[in-house]
Amino acid sequence: MKQYIGKQYETLELVFEGPEPCGSQGKIDLRAAIGLPGQAPARVKGFYAGNGTYRIRYLPELAGVYDIEVHSETLGLSERGTLRIEPADENRHGPVRAVGTAMRCADGTWRPTFGTTVYALAHQSEALIEETLVSLAASPFNKLRTCVFPKHYAYNTNNPRFYPFEPRAGMAEKDFSAEGLPINPMRHGQPEGYWDTNRPCFAYWDHLEQLLRRLGDMGIEVDLILFHPYDRWGFENMSREDNRRYLDYLLRRLAAFPNVWWSLANEYDLCFDKTPEDFEAFARFISENDPFHHPISNHNCFRMWNPDGEGITHVSWQTKELTRVAETVRRYHKPVLIDECRYEGNVPEFWGNLSGETMTRSFWRVMAQGGYCTHGETFLPGTEMGDKATNTGEKDVVWWARGGKLNGQSPARIAFLREVIENLPGPLEPVSGSLSELLCELPEEAMQGAIAGMPPDFQDFLHSVTKMDKMDRERFYAVEYSYRGHCVEQAYLTDLDDQCAAAFELDLPEKSSYRVEVLDTWNMERKTVLRGVSGHVRVDLPGKPWMAVLALRESV
Amino acid sequence: MKQYIGKQYETLELVFEGPEPCGSQGKIDLRAAIGLPGQAPARVKGFYAGNGTYRIRYLPELAGVYDIEVHSETLGLSERGTLRIEPADENRHGPVRAVGTAMRCADGTWRPTFGTTVYALAHQSEALIEETLVSLAASPFNKLRTCVFPKHYAYNTNNPRFYPFEPRAGMAEKDFSAEGLPINPMRHGQPEGYWDTNRPCFAYWDHLEQLLRRLGDMGIEVDLILFHPYDRWGFENMSREDNRRYLDYLLRRLAAFPNVWWSLANEYDLCFDKTPEDFEAFARFISENDPFHHPISNHNCFRMWNPDGEGITHVSWQTKELTRVAETVRRYHKPVLIDECRYEGNVPEFWGNLSGETMTRSFWRVMAQGGYCTHGETFLPGTEMGDKATNTGEKDVVWWARGGKLNGQSPARIAFLREVIENLPGPLEPVSGSLSELLCELPEEAMQGAIAGMPPDFQDFLHSVTKMDKMDRERFYAVEYSYRGHCVEQAYLTDLDDQCAAAFELDLPEKSSYRVEVLDTWNMERKTVLRGVSGHVRVDLPGKPWMAVLALRESV
Repeated sequence: MKQYIGKQYETLELVFEGPEPCGSQGKIDLRAAIGLPGQAPARVKGFYAGNGTYRIRYLPELAGVYDIEVHSETLGLSERGTLRIEPADENRHGPVRAVGTAMRCADGTWRPTFGTTVYALAHQSEALIEETLVSLAASPFNKLRTCVFPKHYAYNTNNPRFYPFEPRAGMAEKDFSAEGLPINPMRHGQPEGYWDTNRPCFAYWDHLEQLLRRLGDMGIEVDLILFHPYDRWGFENMSREDNRRYLDYLLRRLAAFPNVWWSLANEYDLCFDKTPEDFEAFARFISENDPFHHPISNHNCFRMWNPDGEGITHVSWQTKELTRVAETVRRYHKPVLIDECRYEGNVPEFWGNLSGETMTRSFWRVMAQGGYCTHGETFLPGTEMGDKATNTGEKDVVWWARGGKLNGQSPARIAFLREVIENLPGPLEPVSGSLSELLCELPEEAMQGAIAGMPPDFQDFLHSVTKMDKMDRERFYAVEYSYRGHCVEQAYLTDLDDQCAAAFELDLPEKSSYRVEVLDTWNMERKTVLRGVSGHVRVDLPGKPWMAVLALRESV
Repeated sequence: MKQYIGKQYETLELVFEGPEPCGSQGKIDLRAAIGLPGQAPARVKGFYAGNGTYRIRYLPELAGVYDIEVHSETLGLSERGTLRIEPADENRHGPVRAVGTAMRCADGTWRPTFGTTVYALAHQSEALIEETLVSLAASPFNKLRTCVFPKHYAYNTNNPRFYPFEPRAGMAEKDFSAEGLPINPMRHGQPEGYWDTNRPCFAYWDHLEQLLRRLGDMGIEVDLILFHPYDRWGFENMSREDNRRYLDYLLRRLAAFPNVWWSLANEYDLCFDKTPEDFEAFARFISENDPFHHPISNHNCFRMWNPDGEGITHVSWQTKELTRVAETVRRYHKPVLIDECRYEGNVPEFWGNLSGETMTRSFWRVMAQGGYCTHGETFLPGTEMGDKATNTGEKDVVWWARGGKLNGQSPARIAFLREVIENLPGPLEPVSGSLSELLCELPEEAMQGAIAGMPPDFQDFLHSVTKMDKMDRERFYAVEYSYRGHCVEQAYLTDLDDQCAAAFELDLPEKSSYRVEVLDTWNMERKTVLRGVSGHVRVDLPGKPWMAVLALRESV
C-alpha cells in the first residue's frame, strides 16, 4: 500500500518511471481512481512528460484520507494506496468556479476578477516573461487571458521559443517567417499534417506549466485560450483528430492546476476552419475529461457564444457597448465577463486606442452592473508611449500581445475599483425595475402589461417611448443608461459615468440606515458624505465626470 | 398709384389706419397681392396690430418693380401700386431654406447652422434678455430654438411678462402660481377657454417681434417653437379652433421675417392633447399660409417625426445616440439637425449634465457626418457654476430655459468648429461605403448581395459579423463608428472622437493633390502636417482624444 501526502487545493503529482511510449506520447494508459471512502472516485488520466517520466496529477478539494488506485497495462502498473490530504494553507481557497452570477473559490470565497490580456506570453523571451510577471505582481489584475498556441497578428509576429508539438517524422523543416504575410492570415495557415500531436514538445509544456504555476502563486487565474485564428504555423488548421489529441494531452497535464480556466477560443467566430459544432464538441470533451470542473467559456469576436451552450459555465463576451451587462446577467444567471471592450493605448485600430479614462470607465460600467471586466494595453511601438513597453531592449512589444511593462493610466484606477469591490459585502447584482429594463428587455406583451399597471399620466409618457421601435429604444437607453448594482439591501452602487451632475438622488430602503460615499473613480478618492440615512436621499456631487455613489448599510 | 420702396431680403411693411376690428382681432380681411409683372402674385394677409393700426408684411426675394394690390372690405380699402425693391445690402443673403441636405440662403449662400437653446427667452425680464443677447453676440451660435408660449419646467417656473392672448371677456383673473405643481405638468393645464385667441396681446407680439428682429440683425436664425407640453397656463390645452387662430395670426405677423423657422413643437410626442394628425394639419396650414416658405420641422422627445411628412423641410431630431446622422441624411436627402443631444451642465438629470468635452464631441460627431447640431447649457442654480448664469441678480437662471451668460467650455470649441466648417468649400456629405452602412443600413438582401461581391476571405469575415442580429450589429457599430464627411473630392473630414490614435490612415483620390491638417478639437489648434499628398496616406497623431483629420484639395 503506497501512502501519498498532499494538501487541500494544491496539485498533487504522482511520478512513475518507464520506457518511452511505443505509440502516441499523448494518449497513454496510465490512470488513477482517487476518492474518499464510500464516494465515487474521480478518474484521472496520466501523461507522459518525456525522458521516461510518467505523471498523474490530482487536485484534492477536501482534506481527508483518500483511496487511490493506479493502473497502466503498458507500464505493468497496478497499485493501491492512500492519499492523506492535509487542510489547506490559509491563503488557499481552491479552484474558482461559477456559482450563480459570481465566481467563487471552492471554499466559497467570492473571487471578483479583474482581468488583463497578454495573449502570447508563453511565447516570449525569458526576459520579457520575467518583466511581465513583475508588472503583474504590481498590478490590480488577478486574471490573465493568454493562449496556448503562438500568435501572429499586428505587433506580434515573433516566432515562439517552443512549439507545443514536434513536427511529424520525416517532415522537412519549415520556414515560419512572417515576412510578406498579412497581419491576420486567417486562411494562410500551414497545411494540415505538419505537427505531430502524438509527440508533444515537452519543453514547451514544462515551460507553460512553470508559467501557470508562477501566476498561480501570485493569485492570478489563467483564462487559457485553447484555439485562436491568428496563426501562421498551422495550429489553427489542424484536423479534428489532432485537435482532440491536443485537448486530451492538455487536460491530462493541466486540469489539476488550481488556477486554470478553459477559454475554448479567442474569437471563435473568426476560426474559419472550425464550425460551431466543433466548439460544442470541445466543450463537451473538456466537461467530460476535466475531473476538476474548471470554468469553460468561448469568446466571440462578433456574435456572443450561447451562454446556455453545453458545458459553458460563464459568459466571456467581447462587446464594446456596455449597457447590456445587467440584462445578460439577468437572462443567463451566470457570471458575465466582458473579456474585450477595447484597450487603453494609441494604435490606429479602434480596438486599441482608448484613453485611460475610457478604459477605467469601461470597468466601472461593467462592474456596477454585476459583471466583470478585462483590461489590455496597446501602445504603438515607435511612439513615446509604445517605446516604454519594455526594458528588455526588444522591439515591437505591446502588452496585450507580449507583456512587458504597464504604462497606462487605467491600472491604478482599476486597483482603486478593486479595493472598492472587494470591500463590498458580496457580489453585486444588477438593480431591477429600471425603465430600460421595462422598455428594452421585456417582451412586447409583458411590457404593455406592466405599463398598464402604472399611473395614467406615466402611461402616456411610456406609450410615447414605446412608439420608438425596439432598436430606437435600445439606442436611447444605451445613452441614458443607469449603471447600478446592489448586494441585497446591504450595498447600492451607482456609477454616474459621464454625467457631471452636481447632485444625485437615490431611494434606499426605509427600514435600514445607510452610510453614503461619493467616489471619484478617476482621482481615486472616496469620501463618506452622509451617515444614518434611509429612504429618499439627495447627495451633493462635484459636477465632474467619472463619479460614483455607494450606499452601505450601517451595522445595527 | 401708391409707390412703395423696399429692399431685397428685408421685411417690407405697409401700414394702414382704421377703427378697431368689430369681430376677431386676429382674422381680418386686409390682404395684398404682390408680384413681379407677368408672374403669379403672392397672396399676403395683413394683421391688426392694435391701436387702430393695420399692417401687411412682405419679404421680397428679388430686386425689381413689383405690382401690388391691397384690399380690405371692412377698411374700405382697395388700392393698386408699385413696389420698387432695391438690390440687397451685401451682408443680406435672404431667408434660409432647405436645399438638398444643407440649409442655404435665398441667394444660394450655404448657411451651416450652429444652434443653441433658450426656450423661454421671450418671457424673461428685459435685463435678462439684454444679457442673453450680449452673450449670443459673443457666441458661435447662429440659430436659436425658442418658444412662442411661456414654459413651465424645472428651473423655469416664472410667469411671463406678457401672455400671447388676452383672457376671454368676463373671465375671472387666474392665479398662475407654480406653487405645488409638478415640474412637468403635462396634464395639469388650465381648462380650455380661458384665452381669447381672437384677442392677441399686442404688447406680447410687439415684444416677440422686437426680439426676432434683433436676433436677425445679429445673424441668428430663430427656430420658433409653436407648441410645447411644458405649460401651466393652458396654451397647451387650447382647442383645435384656438390653435388654428393662433397659427393664423402668427403667420400674418411673422412670416415676412427673414430669420424665422417653424418648429411645430418641442417634443410633439409629449403633447398629449394633440394627435399626430393635429401636427400634420399644422404643417399643412403653415405650408399653405406662409408665403415665404420658411423651414418647417417637428421636434420629438422619443420617436423622430417623419421627415417625409407633408410640409416638413428638414429633420429636427432629438437623439443622444449620434451614429445615425449619416444614415438619416442618406435616407431622407434633407438637412439633418440634431436639435437636442443633451446639454453641457451639471443638473442631476441625464439630459443636462454633459462635460464641455462631451458637448463639443457631440457637435463634431454630428457635423462630420454632414448634420448640424444644437447646444444648450444647464448649470444647476445654487452651485458655483449655476450661480454664474446671470449678473441680473435673478434666481434660478439656466441658459437653456431663460438665457443669461454662457459659462460652459463648449462654446469656444464650437466657435473653432464653426471656423473649420465655414471654411470648407461647401456642405459636408456623409462618406458612403463604410462597413457600418453595409452591415446596419442595407436591407438584408442587398447586404448579402454586396457581401457576395467581396473577396472570399473578406466574405468569411463579414458573414461572421452578420451572425450578430441586426440590433447587435447596430450596437457594435455604434461604438466602432467612423465619423466622416466630404465635400465631393475637395475635402475629407474625419472626426476621431474618443480614439487616442498615434496614427491615422486615409485613402484620398489619386488624381488630385491634398493638404492634410490635424485638428485638436478641444485645444482648438489646427496644423498642416502634409502637403501634396494623394492616394493612401498615413498621418501621425498625438495619441490624444478629440482629434480630427481634414484633407483639402490643393488648387491645381
